[in-house]
Amino acid sequence: MSLLTETLGLIAPPDAGAEAMARARLDSLTKPRGSLGRLEELAVLLAGITGRPAPTFDHRAVIVMAADHGVTAQGVSAYPREVTAQMLANFVAGGAAINVLARRAGARVIVVDIGVDCEPVPGVLDRKVARGTRDMTAGPAMQRPEAERAIDVGIELVREEHDRGLDLVATGDMGIGNTTAASAITAVLTGSPVRAVTGRGTGIGDTTLERKIALIDRAIATNQPEPADPVDVLAKVGGYEIAGLVGVILSACALRLPIVLDGFASGAAALVASRLHRYVPRYLIPAHRSAEPGHTSLLDSLGLRPLLELDLRLGEGTGAALAMPLIDAAVAVVRDMATFESAGVSRS
Amino acid sequence: MSLLTETLGLIAPPDAGAEAMARARLDSLTKPRGSLGRLEELAVLLAGITGRPAPTFDHRAVIVMAADHGVTAQGVSAYPREVTAQMLANFVAGGAAINVLARRAGARVIVVDIGVDCEPVPGVLDRKVARGTRDMTAGPAMQRPEAERAIDVGIELVREEHDRGLDLVATGDMGIGNTTAASAITAVLTGSPVRAVTGRGTGIGDTTLERKIALIDRAIATNQPEPADPVDVLAKVGGYEIAGLVGVILSACALRLPIVLDGFASGAAALVASRLHRYVPRYLIPAHRSAEPGHTSLLDSLGLRPLLELDLRLGEGTGAALAMPLIDAAVAVVRDMATFESAGVSRS
Repeated sequence: MSLLTETLGLIAPPDAGAEAMARARLDSLTKPRGSLGRLEELAVLLAGITGRPAPTFDHRAVIVMAADHGVTAQGVSAYPREVTAQMLANFVAGGAAINVLARRAGARVIVVDIGVDCEPVPGVLDRKVARGTRDMTAGPAMQRPEAERAIDVGIELVREEHDRGLDLVATGDMGIGNTTAASAITAVLTGSPVRAVTGRGTGIGDTTLERKIALIDRAIATNQPEPADPVDVLAKVGGYEIAGLVGVILSACALRLPIVLDGFASGAAALVASRLHRYVPRYLIPAHRSAEPGHTSLLDSLGLRPLLELDLRLGEGTGAALAMPLIDAAVAVVRDMATFESAGVSRS
Repeated sequence: MSLLTETLGLIAPPDAGAEAMARARLDSLTKPRGSLGRLEELAVLLAGITGRPAPTFDHRAVIVMAADHGVTAQGVSAYPREVTAQMLANFVAGGAAINVLARRAGARVIVVDIGVDCEPVPGVLDRKVARGTRDMTAGPAMQRPEAERAIDVGIELVREEHDRGLDLVATGDMGIGNTTAASAITAVLTGSPVRAVTGRGTGIGDTTLERKIALIDRAIATNQPEPADPVDVLAKVGGYEIAGLVGVILSACALRLPIVLDGFASGAAALVASRLHRYVPRYLIPAHRSAEPGHTSLLDSLGLRPLLELDLRLGEGTGAALAMPLIDAAVAVVRDMATFESAGVSRS
């Protein structure tokens, strides 16, 4: 049995008993019932995922999967391909946005080279499957075994980290060109027109945006990805970092770890994962709504409403790190607030 | 010269130079320009308010103004009037939602009895102007000098705390019946129909909601508050905690302190304050959009888009405390991220 098949077999629904306990506790606290709105829903979700009414998250990590994209040769990004590799060094030095934001959220940053076109970078986990994808406009971005290998990298990594205590996972990505892949996956799996799910990524102008849309259309026409076979879609028009995140998400579901989902690339991975197992969306905490238009189609398809709407379009896991204090707050409410009885406050 | 007049005279526009410095710094950092969206806007706002490109906030406080409302005798809330006083003890004991959330945000909670119908509570700042307002459906909730006194309480408190180092203010409220006052103020100052800006507060049913709307209509008809005179509106259909928060907001503006604005009661205070001085909205950080329908009318009138949309309807400053980590994150980005030059990353 493959690692992917084994992992899918381990995914169970959230724990309804723990959810009910969290709900009962929330209703006993000194506040009008339900008055903390979505923070209460979040507390119930975390209880169901972990099986504990008031879990704590002391070993959290943002897993940043990094890879290059063959399609960048066609000019789809505002930045040169070399930036992916340059950013690896920036991550290691602690100067990137995700370093700053993860530090504030009490999370480690685990940077994984799963497909960057460079020599190994000290401090970066070397799990390179290839030096970037092939150009998806000319043929499949990855062969199916390559995509499956990348999924396995994600599965294995979360297993290893879970053995060391990991209790909360956030997804992150780095890859010049990866909004092109994310848009292609979103178009194929949601059935939306490419134009409706393609945006400006790092900040391209109108001409490049038109080229990007045309290239995605061509990639889909060339490869004919099969929507009913999510791994086929992932291999043909995806990317290594997205495939790695599919593995991270599935592995976290199997281990009952809450997954704080970042933006568009992470969302594309979640969409693929959710088509592989229907319980996946129930383990996802959608951190934010990206400025990329395709992200909204993708969230709608997953049935998810994000916690934050900050018009972020950076990736790296930055939105996920920004949402972590809300997770801590939700759990703290359940754990630390007084009840009507203990505080001697009249009920309605 | 009155304290209010003096305070209004001290309010200046934000510092455009510090805003420009923050913007230039943000554009030099290793991320696509503007890709941190509203977090970048927040950083610029904080720079403008404080006059420093990367301020720190080590002495933050949530000021919770508490008061009772004469209109509760008519039955407008799901909770008995006694809950206001009971909650004072809960605040002091540290068991309320705001205690838990402020602790996580590194903020002190300053609880002020500005008009609660009870004896002084140890641990609560006793600045009682009266034991609650009068029933606004029968006449003015406060006489004008009472409302002015309550505004002065807020102004003085922020001055005192500023002398001791206060660098960030969040607004909070406690007062059974205060959404009735907030809806009345919002209706009069925005010109919206009462029905459109009146909601279920702590959780009233349909019958009580209809009564609440009719009572607000009657209060406005009885008192004829003058929209062009915000203190008249505040006195006739407001509340002591709302008046106190008007003072808090104006005083913070005068002292160039960022104001993290909580929900509906805080918003009503901000609306009154902004009609007293046009620069007020530029010092406000709207934390969240309350589940109360009137809050959206109010935010629109102030030209503010809230950071969070969590369907909160608790008050106490809870939404403001939840937004504080975003403020810390915005400042940390400016202060701690690497530049393209320092990290050797290629620009677009």
